Amino acid sequence: MTPSTPHQDLSKLCIHTITTKPWAIEEAAKNYAAAGVKGITVWRDALEGRNIRQTGNLLRDHDLTVVSLCRGGFFPSKDPNKRKAALDDNRKAIEEAAALGTSLIVLVCGADPGQPLEESRKQIQDGIAAVLPEATAAGVRLAIEPLHPMYADTRSAINTLAQANDMAEALNSPYVGVAVDVYHLWWDPSLQREIQRCGEQGNLMAFHICDWKSPTTDLLLDRGLMGEGCIPIRQIRAWVEATGFTGFNEVEIFSTAYWQEDQSVFLKKIIKAYRENS
Amino acid sequence: MTPSTPHQDLSKLCIHTITTKPWAIEEAAKNYAAAGVKGITVWRDALEGRNIRQTGNLLRDHDLTVVSLCRGGFFPSKDPNKRKAALDDNRKAIEEAAALGTSLIVLVCGADPGQPLEESRKQIQDGIAAVLPEATAAGVRLAIEPLHPMYADTRSAINTLAQANDMAEALNSPYVGVAVDVYHLWWDPSLQREIQRCGEQGNLMAFHICDWKSPTTDLLLDRGLMGEGCIPIRQIRAWVEATGFTGFNEVEIFSTAYWQEDQSVFLKKIIKAYRENS
Repeated sequence: MTPSTPHQDLSKLCIHTITTKPWAIEEAAKNYAAAGVKGITVWRDALEGRNIRQTGNLLRDHDLTVVSLCRGGFFPSKDPNKRKAALDDNRKAIEEAAALGTSLIVLVCGADPGQPLEESRKQIQDGIAAVLPEATAAGVRLAIEPLHPMYADTRSAINTLAQANDMAEALNSPYVGVAVDVYHLWWDPSLQREIQRCGEQGNLMAFHICDWKSPTTDLLLDRGLMGEGCIPIRQIRAWVEATGFTGFNEVEIFSTAYWQEDQSVFLKKIIKAYRENS
Repeated sequence: MTPSTPHQDLSKLCIHTITTKPWAIEEAAKNYAAAGVKGITVWRDALEGRNIRQTGNLLRDHDLTVVSLCRGGFFPSKDPNKRKAALDDNRKAIEEAAALGTSLIVLVCGADPGQPLEESRKQIQDGIAAVLPEATAAGVRLAIEPLHPMYADTRSAINTLAQANDMAEALNSPYVGVAVDVYHLWWDPSLQREIQRCGEQGNLMAFHICDWKSPTTDLLLDRGLMGEGCIPIRQIRAWVEATGFTGFNEVEIFSTAYWQEDQSVFLKKIIKAYRENS
């Protein structure tokens, strides 16, 4: 399959609030909208101290689609009390998503390095199943995000798209699906096949982009702008779009370096990179 | 399958020279032997400025088995001249292994972030095929080491044991096999099955151990001693031994922190960790 052509406009560009972390959400919304960005994914820390419903209205007043809420998950723990607290927190996230007016929560599923990965995986599936009734009742979908294997110790025991597909299919609900992030999955030789499968099963709910820099100097906070690294973003987008996906391209960058820049300058770079390299 | 029981003695303990990098190879050999270590894997930098044949004899005088030479590989490049230079370097490594008196070279296969992973993988397979006649003539086996996906940009486009097995089987020679390193592979949900397959195909040529620390603060130089992290080393060893593998357990740790310690103290820690947690 040939790579996709460049985006014609910004109508499918979404930015995660964490990408421009120094901005408060009100400032981010104003600046995204002024730049022509049409989607926003809200990280929960950006909502602290705010009326969530009013914040959702403010985002829509800026003509921004609230693509998703980040993040639920972190289900596994050796400690049953912590597992119970995680369920409570996920139920709270579902309420927040409904109040914000988004129909999608991204799940960073979690892992406890003190127990086998198999046990963490079982606890993830049990945890999603436990909160699924509330999600369904609220009309909020839960997207399992497979995370890069370098996060298997503490952030997610779901590390390939095949695993996420397996779990979404096992849970077998229109309210459970998968989020595809190029940063986590680009290295996987089965990526094209698993994206196709994800789409065929109706599970492809989100598409996140950024780039893998060479060298990468930090395991968490050194993501690159599209085009700064080695991920074939346009190729992966072609695979995603071939499934019929028409959702947003969500720019999710954690970067100590970019957070130190003037965020208005950084936003211009994001849009340039989106147009030229994604 | 239940995890293996603790090692009864040090007869299967091998240490990589890079693990105690501050020591010259002569010092490492003397100290390993005095501590009862029976195997050594030699990194090529440790041989610089030395007569390789005499160094091999010195190691054997210390009753050390020279388990392997690290490392060949780094085949891919967009630049044909660099690919040719890589073949020459691998042929040199084969000569060095023969001179040293080891029958195994570990391949860190390489990747060029400027080209698709698929192209790098093809160049790896072509590169191994190109030097295989010299390896065969010298009686030196080549072990493909799948590297953690966080190294897919520049160090290896072979990132799962399944990929390494596929390639070893495609090359179909008794002089091509696979090196299993717990650090690179522990997260993989198909690990048990792929280790079994690797053994059944006669391709399991080496077993490397260390641990994955939580948190890991550096992508390359923050490996842990066995027991310091979350890798189920004894479980993985059980899978390896179930294939009939009777080779060495090779301790390969890159750690800025441990390299700053008194290496005699560090060696004692390695042996304690080997006995208690591997």
